[in-house]
Amino acid sequence: MTMLVTDQEVAATLDAAATVAAMRDALRAAYAGRLVAPPRASASLAGGRMVLTAGHLTGEWYGYRSYDTFGLPESAQLVVLHDARTGAVRAVAVGEELGSRRTGGLGGVAIDALARPDAATIGVIGSGRQAWTQVWAAAAVRPLRQIRVQSRSAARRAAFADRVRAELGVPAVPVGTVREAVAGADVVVLATTSVTPVLDAADLAPGTHVNAVGFKQADRHEFGTDLLERAEVLVTDSPVQATAYVPPMLAAVEPYAGRLRDLGAVLAGAVAGRTTADQVSVFCSTGLAGTEVFLLDRLVRAGAAVVRPAGGHRM
Amino acid sequence: MTMLVTDQEVAATLDAAATVAAMRDALRAAYAGRLVAPPRASASLAGGRMVLTAGHLTGEWYGYRSYDTFGLPESAQLVVLHDARTGAVRAVAVGEELGSRRTGGLGGVAIDALARPDAATIGVIGSGRQAWTQVWAAAAVRPLRQIRVQSRSAARRAAFADRVRAELGVPAVPVGTVREAVAGADVVVLATTSVTPVLDAADLAPGTHVNAVGFKQADRHEFGTDLLERAEVLVTDSPVQATAYVPPMLAAVEPYAGRLRDLGAVLAGAVAGRTTADQVSVFCSTGLAGTEVFLLDRLVRAGAAVVRPAGGHRM
Repeated sequence: MTMLVTDQEVAATLDAAATVAAMRDALRAAYAGRLVAPPRASASLAGGRMVLTAGHLTGEWYGYRSYDTFGLPESAQLVVLHDARTGAVRAVAVGEELGSRRTGGLGGVAIDALARPDAATIGVIGSGRQAWTQVWAAAAVRPLRQIRVQSRSAARRAAFADRVRAELGVPAVPVGTVREAVAGADVVVLATTSVTPVLDAADLAPGTHVNAVGFKQADRHEFGTDLLERAEVLVTDSPVQATAYVPPMLAAVEPYAGRLRDLGAVLAGAVAGRTTADQVSVFCSTGLAGTEVFLLDRLVRAGAAVVRPAGGHRM
Repeated sequence: MTMLVTDQEVAATLDAAATVAAMRDALRAAYAGRLVAPPRASASLAGGRMVLTAGHLTGEWYGYRSYDTFGLPESAQLVVLHDARTGAVRAVAVGEELGSRRTGGLGGVAIDALARPDAATIGVIGSGRQAWTQVWAAAAVRPLRQIRVQSRSAARRAAFADRVRAELGVPAVPVGTVREAVAGADVVVLATTSVTPVLDAADLAPGTHVNAVGFKQADRHEFGTDLLERAEVLVTDSPVQATAYVPPMLAAVEPYAGRLRDLGAVLAGAVAGRTTADQVSVFCSTGLAGTEVFLLDRLVRAGAAVVRPAGGHRM
């Protein structure tokens, strides 16, 4: 029997710690070759595309996420989980929560692996859903002392700061400029919809870690090459997907491609992450394919543990 | 709110007449350019592929069917229906019924358009789900007098004949050879899993119409070039998809491609179908993309009409 999973159920089951833990496992599985995550496939329809990102955790499950590019107000993503032993469709999730939580979770893993161990302040550029889940996940990997948030709308950045205080219990203030947000911050989150750079890399303090979640392709990017020049540690969650973008990710073309590291390899200890406290590190978030299905599998297994009277435990 | 549709609901709502009518509308919409149906997209996973066939009925809906090629026993297809005005996911169907009914429905349209008006006997090669839905749809477009069915398993062909008698009220007999099944038949259904020809075209009577539902690519095909040579009327439901197969459909390469007609064009009266009673006509079923979503849209609207006290009517 197929389970239909709503955003409410995702929110009730997948907290930040569980989500970050799942994404860490996913990155390790991808690096070990157990999570197969090919570049996206898409079909062109008049006015938009239907896009599929698929994944297969060998021996466990296969499935995909679908989304479209029509830009309609109520469009929702689907995540579909097949059992790899029988093929049966175990669950279908409809909504946005799995997608944004997994992006947040990947960002949390990056902060945990790459930011300084004593990182405690975050400068956030952007106040949308993606900005929120980055901070939500960050709070699960570092004890945060302050968030400063900047976005174009004064009302939205104030509301974002209110939400951080209320839901995460972290002091938060809205600020009027990007420079104020990032000055002296241990971590910077870029989560805008801008296609041109919003940040001057010279404004970053030594030792800052940056999570870049918005546009970052060669022809549209919320940060410029100055950030890539400044980055001594340059990492992504999927070098394959970063290269397969059309056009490719800015960090996946020369002269940066040769320096771009795989977050899974960093987690496995195969390549170094940050080695000194004053390096600037940058995580270019690609959205490793298959990670939404990975998260749905965790959710279904956590749910099964809840309804079963004996055995298992809640995540 | 997304509706989860099961095979049981599909079977209870979409009878053969409604399904054939829907597929006729879909073929006309595709020919008129209102149904956008690009070739399939797929993502390679280790051991199999995840495949997506998408469609968009301008102003009405967009969506897709997904299936995989892992060959697992309980693998099910998904059909997803988005509202084209809002993007909302109106329904998700999990199972096999929509897919096999739409293939049956397309076959029913082909028989209605291409078989002789007085066609009343069918020779069926194959006894699986695809063979069944072809006969099920045929019974909605012609008053049938007899079905003869051949398949490799004596038990399965006997069971198939039993089912035809019981569910369609049509006399049906199992036969031991392909020649016995097709001799003098007005319509022949090829619905096997064979990758080599099962039929000798010389065994067909003049005036026979053939629906070919199984393998028909250049490198694996349940019928040979003798059938294409014999066909004076050669039709498919999607010339674009027939050409896009890798390798292409046998009927979509020269010397046959130039003669291959679009069933939608035949329905629209833009090109001729059968013009004499003794022509052999062949329908190469491709499975026009978007038709599963078309059918799911009809099902959802029929269901909505049932629950609404006033307005609308059941299909």
